[in-house]
Amino acid sequence: MTDTTPSPDASPTPSPTPLTLLGTGDMGSALGRAWLAAGHPLTVWNRTPSRTEPLAALGAVVASTAAEAVAANRLVVACLLDDDSVGAALDGADLAGRDLVNLTTGTPGEGRSRAAWARERGARFLDAGIMAVPPMIGVPDSGAYVLYSGSRDLFAEHRATLAVPAGARYVGEDPGFAALHDVALLSAMSGMFAGVLHAFALVRHEEVAPRDFAALLVDWLTAMAGSAHTTAEQIETGDYGKGVVSNLAMQSAGNATLLRTAEEQRVSPELLTPYMELMARRVAAGHGGEDVAGMVELLDRR
Amino acid sequence: MTDTTPSPDASPTPSPTPLTLLGTGDMGSALGRAWLAAGHPLTVWNRTPSRTEPLAALGAVVASTAAEAVAANRLVVACLLDDDSVGAALDGADLAGRDLVNLTTGTPGEGRSRAAWARERGARFLDAGIMAVPPMIGVPDSGAYVLYSGSRDLFAEHRATLAVPAGARYVGEDPGFAALHDVALLSAMSGMFAGVLHAFALVRHEEVAPRDFAALLVDWLTAMAGSAHTTAEQIETGDYGKGVVSNLAMQSAGNATLLRTAEEQRVSPELLTPYMELMARRVAAGHGGEDVAGMVELLDRR
Repeated sequence: MTDTTPSPDASPTPSPTPLTLLGTGDMGSALGRAWLAAGHPLTVWNRTPSRTEPLAALGAVVASTAAEAVAANRLVVACLLDDDSVGAALDGADLAGRDLVNLTTGTPGEGRSRAAWARERGARFLDAGIMAVPPMIGVPDSGAYVLYSGSRDLFAEHRATLAVPAGARYVGEDPGFAALHDVALLSAMSGMFAGVLHAFALVRHEEVAPRDFAALLVDWLTAMAGSAHTTAEQIETGDYGKGVVSNLAMQSAGNATLLRTAEEQRVSPELLTPYMELMARRVAAGHGGEDVAGMVELLDRR
Repeated sequence: MTDTTPSPDASPTPSPTPLTLLGTGDMGSALGRAWLAAGHPLTVWNRTPSRTEPLAALGAVVASTAAEAVAANRLVVACLLDDDSVGAALDGADLAGRDLVNLTTGTPGEGRSRAAWARERGARFLDAGIMAVPPMIGVPDSGAYVLYSGSRDLFAEHRATLAVPAGARYVGEDPGFAALHDVALLSAMSGMFAGVLHAFALVRHEEVAPRDFAALLVDWLTAMAGSAHTTAEQIETGDYGKGVVSNLAMQSAGNATLLRTAEEQRVSPELLTPYMELMARRVAAGHGGEDVAGMVELLDRR
């Protein structure tokens, strides 16, 4: 006996929103697979049509032009090479009434001008920065997320759909903010990776097991990352002397040991010297009793 | 009714080991307070005698010369300005039969030559690197720890005493290893702080709350720090192409967006450019399909 009667408390599940995806490179394809797997009808377009085939095999409809793909759905996601590619792909498309979500990597300025461009064409616009690599997309608990900024209404309306491939975080109405946050996080990561490289270069020719060293290093960096909260407070108040435990004069003196060790271990100090030189300049300018955060002033070219 | 009879299963608690502390600067004083608080009889010496007064008030015996302080106890801890200060302070002292633990900041080479110097004088020797600032010393669960290397016997015998002010981690018989690990961790931290500074410089003139940004940044850096485990595997095997998810060619292309954003936000890119230039050199040398770890080869001056 089969019971086909809905139970009284079953609420109707909304059908997954259909959407269009422009760009099926590694990242676009990963996003597309996630939406298809969640039951979203998907129309795709790519400049090189053969790259749409794997998604077509999973049920995506392939449009022969970007304009046709845009015409198919109100929600249009672009994941292209760069901002110029977005302009080129959408050149002949009718964007009036469309919700354009731009997952293409760019600068804050590009996000802002693309937002104005989209508004002129009658579209709502959301810029985005993907904090993940393709293998993390569509994987529950991978930690992958996407930063969004621009139209708050667009985000509110499509949040559930946008959250299918990765976590969705809205960072403000300024359409430049997604890229700004994205680039700031990647920049901080680059600095950390530079430090990690220098550290491994120091130990690699010694009888130190890289895995044991990595365990120590990960714990240390994780503990020290927390100091960014103090940095934030100091930057917010402009009081770089508040709560200092190891001031710039002490740290700058300690840098001599770091440089001599690099020399002993025959490691080029090139990844660390600009930081040390900036610190020495800040100390020379009379800020030796303050914290690292104050060095931010010396990076400012305004 | 008061029961003064020891319970049958009470084992006798060993009396806390008496020890000598040379150097009562900020760090030395913090260490001394921790040992006194734990009941260790403490003899102290400092080049500027007035700086021993706070510890004397807590019960420390003040020696008038370093030689006298060394004569007072078998376990001698030095926490001085630099390696030269250690040699100068201990010049006239009889080290025969002493256990010398050197908590003075130095290079691996200084640790090794100081170990040989101590052995010649009949002392066992342990070099150390303190991974903490003074306010963390003697505070349970502060995360503070000290790296030790050198005489395994000395470490085993005095481990409990050494673990009083902060956690104690032994990293090998090579007396240079404590400083090597210490400097490597501090170097990695410097890189991370450089990246964090650049990130704050990018957002600070925008309508971005520093505290909100810090929360995002700490989560991100914590997640990305884990990649050091992969880096370790790649360095161990020399296979920099294994398990790559975002190769150097892609990352190097992405650096252009980071640099353009710095320019838009009027932030000097000086803290990041050496890393980007090193990456571009590695890509130009034909390693674009590999991971960041391979860049370590370019830092090597052997």
